[in-house]
Amino acid sequence: MRKYFFFFLFSFLIDGFVSAQSREVLTIREYGTKNAGNIINEFAEFLSFPNVAANPAGQQQTAAFLMTMMSKRGIQKVQLLNASTAGAPPAVYGEVIVPGAKQTLIFYAHYDGQPVNPAQWAKGLDPFQPKLFSKAIDKGGLPIPFPTDGSYTNDWRIYARGAADDKAGVDAILNAYDAIRKSKLTPGCNLKFFFEGEEEAGSPHLNEILEKYRSLLQSDLWIICDGPVHQSGKKQIVFGVRGDTHLDLTVYASKRPLHSGHYGNWAPNPAMMLAKLLASMKDENGRVTIKGFYDDVIPLSPSERKALEEVPSVDTQMEKELGISAVEMQGVTLSEAINQPSLNINGMQSGNVGKMASNQIPTFATAVLDLRLVLGNDWKRQQQKVIDHIKAQGYYITDSEPTDNEREKYAKIIKVIPGQDGINAQRTSMDLPIIQKVIAAVKATSKEQIVLQPTMGGSLPLFLFEKYLNAKTVTVPIANHDNNQHAENENIRIGNLFDGIETMASLMLIK
Amino acid sequence: MRKYFFFFLFSFLIDGFVSAQSREVLTIREYGTKNAGNIINEFAEFLSFPNVAANPAGQQQTAAFLMTMMSKRGIQKVQLLNASTAGAPPAVYGEVIVPGAKQTLIFYAHYDGQPVNPAQWAKGLDPFQPKLFSKAIDKGGLPIPFPTDGSYTNDWRIYARGAADDKAGVDAILNAYDAIRKSKLTPGCNLKFFFEGEEEAGSPHLNEILEKYRSLLQSDLWIICDGPVHQSGKKQIVFGVRGDTHLDLTVYASKRPLHSGHYGNWAPNPAMMLAKLLASMKDENGRVTIKGFYDDVIPLSPSERKALEEVPSVDTQMEKELGISAVEMQGVTLSEAINQPSLNINGMQSGNVGKMASNQIPTFATAVLDLRLVLGNDWKRQQQKVIDHIKAQGYYITDSEPTDNEREKYAKIIKVIPGQDGINAQRTSMDLPIIQKVIAAVKATSKEQIVLQPTMGGSLPLFLFEKYLNAKTVTVPIANHDNNQHAENENIRIGNLFDGIETMASLMLIK
Repeated sequence: MRKYFFFFLFSFLIDGFVSAQSREVLTIREYGTKNAGNIINEFAEFLSFPNVAANPAGQQQTAAFLMTMMSKRGIQKVQLLNASTAGAPPAVYGEVIVPGAKQTLIFYAHYDGQPVNPAQWAKGLDPFQPKLFSKAIDKGGLPIPFPTDGSYTNDWRIYARGAADDKAGVDAILNAYDAIRKSKLTPGCNLKFFFEGEEEAGSPHLNEILEKYRSLLQSDLWIICDGPVHQSGKKQIVFGVRGDTHLDLTVYASKRPLHSGHYGNWAPNPAMMLAKLLASMKDENGRVTIKGFYDDVIPLSPSERKALEEVPSVDTQMEKELGISAVEMQGVTLSEAINQPSLNINGMQSGNVGKMASNQIPTFATAVLDLRLVLGNDWKRQQQKVIDHIKAQGYYITDSEPTDNEREKYAKIIKVIPGQDGINAQRTSMDLPIIQKVIAAVKATSKEQIVLQPTMGGSLPLFLFEKYLNAKTVTVPIANHDNNQHAENENIRIGNLFDGIETMASLMLIK
Repeated sequence: MRKYFFFFLFSFLIDGFVSAQSREVLTIREYGTKNAGNIINEFAEFLSFPNVAANPAGQQQTAAFLMTMMSKRGIQKVQLLNASTAGAPPAVYGEVIVPGAKQTLIFYAHYDGQPVNPAQWAKGLDPFQPKLFSKAIDKGGLPIPFPTDGSYTNDWRIYARGAADDKAGVDAILNAYDAIRKSKLTPGCNLKFFFEGEEEAGSPHLNEILEKYRSLLQSDLWIICDGPVHQSGKKQIVFGVRGDTHLDLTVYASKRPLHSGHYGNWAPNPAMMLAKLLASMKDENGRVTIKGFYDDVIPLSPSERKALEEVPSVDTQMEKELGISAVEMQGVTLSEAINQPSLNINGMQSGNVGKMASNQIPTFATAVLDLRLVLGNDWKRQQQKVIDHIKAQGYYITDSEPTDNEREKYAKIIKVIPGQDGINAQRTSMDLPIIQKVIAAVKATSKEQIVLQPTMGGSLPLFLFEKYLNAKTVTVPIANHDNNQHAENENIRIGNLFDGIETMASLMLIK
């Protein structure tokens, strides 16, 4: 890291100009390099607290440790924000009031992680015993001890649940403030900190917390530190998220499994029925054929369109990495694709396969559909379009197991369970003055292009901030894109953690 | 049962004519009624030996008990017929040579049963502790003790693995001979008995046994006692079986699971690809659209066509029983359907469904196809038609996990594993003199229509008898059609067991 620091300084010097903002970034960087040992030691301890919903005690310990981290840094009003619903994991709050500051930024990250199945993790890895590796394990990384001299290398990785998603976010935010403070700098605005405790459960009580603590949580902008940087490795700022909703479909056939010899060709096969139904939803080029599916979409603004055009293409890189040689919609780039509503099969099942397969006609076939939404879509309306399409294929739709009466009356029966926790898309205009400052602040931390994404492909309940607080949001992610988010072997690249500290500090210095 | 006996006798008397054959049947029936207690006691003991492949010791005990049953009945040359492959479950053989007899019938049943999952059986049921019920459990049947006075009712049922499939067949055959012997009747032909021990495993060593014991197993006709009577409850004779073969399909997409938000609409979804591929195999009316799929079929002969027309329609009854109100091919009856080659999805799977579902794009999607064949089809040729169809949909076909090189080269990749144990259909002409005698013998046991089925829907490796012994076969099943064959709660209806004894005895009396 030290080498990198001097290179960075040098590259500014040969440009012949170092802005005030860039000078501050250099100060933060130097602080990070000098204090890497302590920062990582504390981070590793933070990672060792189990932060999964299945372990409420572990969640509480995580929150308690987090409050200690905040208090240690002199952050004020450190407290738990409890939802109205008893027992919901609280958010952790704190603030720093800067005399004379005209604006308030509130930094969001979440301290809970995705559920873990330790058996799926690489040999020797425990999700809550952070381990250091020389690089990504699937690229041949080997375990190395945490160095005692605090000398870290950017490509090293720490493996643990939450290492990237999103304890790294929490840690980058808190160390950014620490770096400012200990480098005798002053934040340019008031800072608030909001660390959620059930983001991975779909934020079911976030609305309650926002409503209950409305006045405490006032700000000029929420900065969401969650998710990965661009697949090119470049930093990115994301101005919106896709919405998300689901539909569970179950096609029913015979009440009991039938011998595929004795009844094959005569009895309806629910797997074939479901296959035909699903196949009817997209054309050969991956475009959704459901009536009106793309109708509500609000087009991108000129600056969003320009930003999109400047997003570096990672399509070829990703195709190679993923081992695919064609995309679903020929000629549509990844950036374009995630700016459209989508329909995906998350799972599909009927009867048994492999060694468990038997000569049967199954009794039912089921699929889970994931619908992603963009600005203009409404999640209930989008669900309804799919339901109308299913009806148009001749299906009788029920919300429970079909009765004998229904079975007698209808040839094609499907149970449709629309998800009840849909969220709409959200997008903050890139043209707002405060957003322009955010872009400048992030740009000040890097010689590289900063990728500006009108929308990320994934979903976060950002519309809640708009709904309950009338607040704007912008997402500034820091994790490496290959962090195994939500899966086994989650990891953070050391370079990304320290870059993240710089990015968050630069934002805190916005005046 | 006694009541039934007198009714039967009376109905013959008012017809004013009792043939010699029918008089013999009445003798057999009387024997069955008088000896029901002993017959069921022995049967229950036979059922208590575990006869599943997973329990070789249980299989050996079953075979040993079966040999004792045969020896007790004075059957000669009782012996195990071992395959050339060591360790394969042996067949059990025995014979009765009748002086002056001109023909030899060989009776086939199998003593092994389908694997069991006791957890799936009804509460209180153990697959190898036979229990008596007042009627079918799913029709409200209650457990009753085995009567000590040997007085049984036709609608009672015995629950145990193998109760119907196919220890009932073994038991009916042995008690038929016992009834003839103890009633001082003489079989009309030489009798041979062949009880297979691995039918439920797909008879992998039957070919070896038939080849090795070719001369011992010479006969004029194999009578296969396996499977259920007609769904109408009427007895049936089945002259052929459909062939069977399988294909395992796996469509590949991204090498690692992808977030359906970040990559949805861009990355190919293997579940959708598989759905489209499967959907392309049948039209909206359930007819297989694969090129040449129906081309090789040898049409039914005039007598087969006539028999087919006389098969009682059970379509309405079965639709009601199964809770379906439309069949796959509109206007095609069950009888017609099973005289055509079929394509069925036995199982289909991609990602996860229900509570395990997650916002992912799965890495692969898999399906198991079951192809049934009729006379004229060749199983390898039929597989090839499906493979050619898949190719025509633009797929690159491999037989293992795709390599990086293949992934780079081909947009649509599928692994196809064709089953290696396919069997062709078999059909014995109804016009042969010996077959005419069989039909007459079964007709002599009932006032009801005897259903003559050119082909059963299911598959048995009957072509092996033709191939290795140049032998004819005919199938005379005895079990109730709702016997839960191959599933939990297998059962035999008492009336069907005793009807079966009569049927088998009537066949043994053929001259």
